[in-house]
Amino acid sequence: MKAFMNEDFLLTTAAAQVLYHNHAARMPIIDYHCHLSPRMVADDHRFRSLTEIWLGGDHYKWRAMRANGIDEKYCTGDASDWEKFEKWAQTVPYTMRNPLYHWTHLELKTAFGIDKIVSPATARKIYNECNEKLKLPEYSARGMMRRYKVEVVCTTDDPADTLEYHKKTRESGFEIKMLPTWRPDKAMAVESPALFRSYVESLSNASGVTVSTFPDMIDALQKRHDFFAANGCRLSDHGLETFYAEACTTDEAKTIFNKVYGGKDLTHEEILKFKSAMLLIFAEMDWEKGWVQQFHYGAIRNNNTKMFRQAGPDTGFDSIGEFNTAKALSAFLNRLNASGKLAKTIVYNLNPCANEVIATMLGNFQDGTIPGKLQFGSGWWFLDQKDGMRKQMNALSVLGLLSRFVGMLTDSRSFLSYPRHEYFRRTLCDLLGTDIENGELPSGEMSFIGQMVENISYYNAKQFFMF
Amino acid sequence: MKAFMNEDFLLTTAAAQVLYHNHAARMPIIDYHCHLSPRMVADDHRFRSLTEIWLGGDHYKWRAMRANGIDEKYCTGDASDWEKFEKWAQTVPYTMRNPLYHWTHLELKTAFGIDKIVSPATARKIYNECNEKLKLPEYSARGMMRRYKVEVVCTTDDPADTLEYHKKTRESGFEIKMLPTWRPDKAMAVESPALFRSYVESLSNASGVTVSTFPDMIDALQKRHDFFAANGCRLSDHGLETFYAEACTTDEAKTIFNKVYGGKDLTHEEILKFKSAMLLIFAEMDWEKGWVQQFHYGAIRNNNTKMFRQAGPDTGFDSIGEFNTAKALSAFLNRLNASGKLAKTIVYNLNPCANEVIATMLGNFQDGTIPGKLQFGSGWWFLDQKDGMRKQMNALSVLGLLSRFVGMLTDSRSFLSYPRHEYFRRTLCDLLGTDIENGELPSGEMSFIGQMVENISYYNAKQFFMF
Amino acid sequence: MKAFMNEDFLLTTAAAQVLYHNHAARMPIIDYHCHLSPRMVADDHRFRSLTEIWLGGDHYKWRAMRANGIDEKYCTGDASDWEKFEKWAQTVPYTMRNPLYHWTHLELKTAFGIDKIVSPATARKIYNECNEKLKLPEYSARGMMRRYKVEVVCTTDDPADTLEYHKKTRESGFEIKMLPTWRPDKAMAVESPALFRSYVESLSNASGVTVSTFPDMIDALQKRHDFFAANGCRLSDHGLETFYAEACTTDEAKTIFNKVYGGKDLTHEEILKFKSAMLLIFAEMDWEKGWVQQFHYGAIRNNNTKMFRQAGPDTGFDSIGEFNTAKALSAFLNRLNASGKLAKTIVYNLNPCANEVIATMLGNFQDGTIPGKLQFGSGWWFLDQKDGMRKQMNALSVLGLLSRFVGMLTDSRSFLSYPRHEYFRRTLCDLLGTDIENGELPSGEMSFIGQMVENISYYNAKQFFMF
Repeated sequence: MKAFMNEDFLLTTAAAQVLYHNHAARMPIIDYHCHLSPRMVADDHRFRSLTEIWLGGDHYKWRAMRANGIDEKYCTGDASDWEKFEKWAQTVPYTMRNPLYHWTHLELKTAFGIDKIVSPATARKIYNECNEKLKLPEYSARGMMRRYKVEVVCTTDDPADTLEYHKKTRESGFEIKMLPTWRPDKAMAVESPALFRSYVESLSNASGVTVSTFPDMIDALQKRHDFFAANGCRLSDHGLETFYAEACTTDEAKTIFNKVYGGKDLTHEEILKFKSAMLLIFAEMDWEKGWVQQFHYGAIRNNNTKMFRQAGPDTGFDSIGEFNTAKALSAFLNRLNASGKLAKTIVYNLNPCANEVIATMLGNFQDGTIPGKLQFGSGWWFLDQKDGMRKQMNALSVLGLLSRFVGMLTDSRSFLSYPRHEYFRRTLCDLLGTDIENGELPSGEMSFIGQMVENISYYNAKQFFMF
Repeated sequence: MKAFMNEDFLLTTAAAQVLYHNHAARMPIIDYHCHLSPRMVADDHRFRSLTEIWLGGDHYKWRAMRANGIDEKYCTGDASDWEKFEKWAQTVPYTMRNPLYHWTHLELKTAFGIDKIVSPATARKIYNECNEKLKLPEYSARGMMRRYKVEVVCTTDDPADTLEYHKKTRESGFEIKMLPTWRPDKAMAVESPALFRSYVESLSNASGVTVSTFPDMIDALQKRHDFFAANGCRLSDHGLETFYAEACTTDEAKTIFNKVYGGKDLTHEEILKFKSAMLLIFAEMDWEKGWVQQFHYGAIRNNNTKMFRQAGPDTGFDSIGEFNTAKALSAFLNRLNASGKLAKTIVYNLNPCANEVIATMLGNFQDGTIPGKLQFGSGWWFLDQKDGMRKQMNALSVLGLLSRFVGMLTDSRSFLSYPRHEYFRRTLCDLLGTDIENGELPSGEMSFIGQMVENISYYNAKQFFMF
Repeated sequence: MKAFMNEDFLLTTAAAQVLYHNHAARMPIIDYHCHLSPRMVADDHRFRSLTEIWLGGDHYKWRAMRANGIDEKYCTGDASDWEKFEKWAQTVPYTMRNPLYHWTHLELKTAFGIDKIVSPATARKIYNECNEKLKLPEYSARGMMRRYKVEVVCTTDDPADTLEYHKKTRESGFEIKMLPTWRPDKAMAVESPALFRSYVESLSNASGVTVSTFPDMIDALQKRHDFFAANGCRLSDHGLETFYAEACTTDEAKTIFNKVYGGKDLTHEEILKFKSAMLLIFAEMDWEKGWVQQFHYGAIRNNNTKMFRQAGPDTGFDSIGEFNTAKALSAFLNRLNASGKLAKTIVYNLNPCANEVIATMLGNFQDGTIPGKLQFGSGWWFLDQKDGMRKQMNALSVLGLLSRFVGMLTDSRSFLSYPRHEYFRRTLCDLLGTDIENGELPSGEMSFIGQMVENISYYNAKQFFMF
């Protein structure tokens, strides 16, 4: 029987252990998609308690607590830091087999050097010990990034954002690169005329372009796109329910813009047309700059109206959708490919049933210009766990080229999430190691496979994003 | 090499064996959803032959026989008991790797103490031996329930049912609880005006309410709901193709009722509206009583018209559907949650592709009032086998809380199906035991994990349903 | 650690090894569905180079090369044979974990006796050695078929085809049966009036029937169907996006025919109606002849317009679709079953998410006339690899009867693809062997299980297709 989470955690064969310890573990981290607060990096934020750094904003943990019968007061409510932590510690044993159980103990171990099992019995001791450590300078926001050998992080930013904290961080001489990512979801969100208008106004302010027509808005967005590029941006990102590929002429887009900007609700068809038009325009902007475009699709968000009113978005009330989007994705990529404007692309699906669809669809547009030009994104959100990662890597392996994969990202709001890279790398090494052990990969090719592990852990991303 | 189906069947690690033998195996059975005949329990039915108790009504076996080239005569036809059994014995070897192969030998072993492999060579001997035993009093309907340490069974009953056999059983002093379950599918079945009208009339008779309008029907249903409660009912159940969440005003419902009750075919839209309205009304009734509502969705039934005419429903001509129902399920639960009327709920999906959708959707409505208020139901029907159970438990584990799961039910018409609880428990223990063996769960927490096994096998259900 | 691809490749237990070596490996090959060129068999084609026999027409390899950053010139372009092979050899190491890595080394080993790992370092040597061997008579098209103990192959042919090469082959006395398969996709392809008309004209020429109406076309098709039967045809095959089961009267079909034949575009609804009508007519023709009908559904083809113009169809730009087709499939099969005209049928799905849907849907129409009358087809195209095969066999096992499965086919254009039967058989034996090892199948039944392996490898197909 193997000890819990020892150095060979998740590594079930000798070959897997060699691949991990001699190759994967040595690589720095490129976290090319996350939701860290740029301000906390700029200010080198110090955390007042384990609750702040660990539970603040962590909707995964809140969902687990609610399912465990814990009142909202201890999740997003006004309970004290200790009370919230106590309720979380009470919940941890009930999360066995959930990735939270692993993340929790891996983070505790790698960040704080604590090997204890979290439970009501150990809660107070762990809380105090961590809080003491959090007072030390090396436990600041930047300290955490250094601890995990992070080399680059890419935050997620609105086109109207000033990027002031990116600038401040850069100018401070911080040795870790923090780059912005262009996430223009609000420019496509025409469901609510009032919110859309207010967003267009903020774009206008940020860009200095007076916006009253569709071409004005595109002009304003283009200026912000240029500004992002000037600030080191290399990636865009889009959060979509499904892909949109309706035909929409410029005249139609102008008319739809006028209607929604004028405060009128759009029809369902107009919404789809407008989103389709914007998606193409954004894709072409990215292609012109040589950026990588990312698409995260397939969530159903804000399912719980009552809690949305109480706690707002991103508080744990989103889930996995069921969408048949293959044809729209095909049409979208095909149109860009036909005009020679298909940028490097990463597609992340939320429903694991789409793994095979995405893995094969992307293969249709690999054009031989660079290895792995179209990437099947690593297990996202609910799928960011051993089972989800394995399924994604297995689908990519059998339907594409695992060797060209740009690998893991945290997608996290937390400075404590970097062990997910370790988790991913262990899972990757275990897949390859098992194949070697079983005679399904040649043990004589260990040095090639070791290099492949280093590539997927680090070098592929470095090259792909041109950091 | 392990002997076939020995005491450590399905238990691949030492930890799994400890969990099963010291914890799971000791628990009584709560079979909170089944299709047993209340009359057979009331009458303490004695079985005339192995064919009656084993093949009667078992559409799983009939499907296997048909696929094996056996004529319908030996399934639902007029062949003799022995002939039918002979054909089944001939088919058994051909079911290897199908759960029937395991159920068959597990039932033979635990009910009759027979260890033989069923085949044409052993058929006659097994048949005779079992028929002898079936003459003994302990092989009656109640004897079988006692043999497997059953504590509670919940049957599945129509609102118009008199529940006379439940009463008779209760009054007989039978020590095992047999409770009714409210299954009002026919009150939503407005596809056929004639069948609907005739059903409404039976409701009217049962309730004593003269029904000629929609409010009358609701009144009649409410009276029956109260009657079921008075007879110990704690759960409802709904068999749905998909979820329905169309807007439907009371006036619309009234109009639709009048139309269909008047004998006119409804439009597709009217059908959806009516079903949506009924589903909400039923959900609110359950919430008021503190019941648990169950939804079994996703089957396509009665695919084979020729055999439907010959053999009727539930004879093995149903299959797994493909429905995108996440948004409707979300809207349905959200509406109840928003009005504060969301009862404890169990959702069972038939297509395993929906596992992740259901597991995450239910998480949106966990409100911290009780642990596991919304339950992802155990592998249902075609999925009620090792592979299906593992997928359901893995999805629940990584996307929710396995620890709070109410576990297994037979959903069976047969008094011989209780070993499925054993099968489920072995599968559960194997999942946990493997994790312990691999260092993915701490071996130091065996007593917590043992308790978790007991909870999922028994205590969670006892508490959840308040038996 | 097991040596790479040794004699026990993929066989992880002793029982699996016995089943494979003593049973599966001894069986001849029936390749009941492939895309071999009948002309190459008739002419007993000699291959000019390893590139011709290995890379020519192999869109799997082209897709991998494009994803690896290799220019189109080396895939479908005008590079020399050696240059193309060199680029492929350069790509092979990057295909680790993709089935191509296994196919490549298995084909090299079994066809050429070469055990080397393909890489830039070994490319030249392998290329030369294979080219030398290809000069030998036993490396001709027929030689390859003999090498792998092929007994029957069924090619894929258009109704307008003369079948001259089948005749020539037959008359040459070639000891391996090459039979045609009826694949009338073009007779349903009414999306393009011009292409449809031109196809109808070729049908008219082939059949000698002057076609100007719908009944004429059916008459012409019937004559060709009879001609195929006279040439040994036993199977049909259909490539469908989804199933079609719209109601379409003969009058409607006539009108739609006149419209499209007259050069006018059809509406979406007319297209569906016409396809539905044709599908039924073809199904009835097959039933009358006692043929087996095959349906390959679920691909989205020709996604990349740019490359379609440059390289044509079947060059690696197809992928897995997302279709909800269960209800249409049900309606289609039910209609045939109700009229007593449901032929033996094999359904192949491309999206693995449909495995459970198909496996259970087919069970609805098993009628006891012959074992396994409706067959769930082996892992197709992208799913023709270990993971895909295992999923298909597991779904078939738990939801149907694995024992009655007609097993593997290559679906290949290449004379080097026969090792896929070996791959399939090893995977099958491993599934069964693992169950025996774990005590989930009785080791005492080894001789029955050995027979079952032989049946799935060979005898079931022989009997089912009546070769």
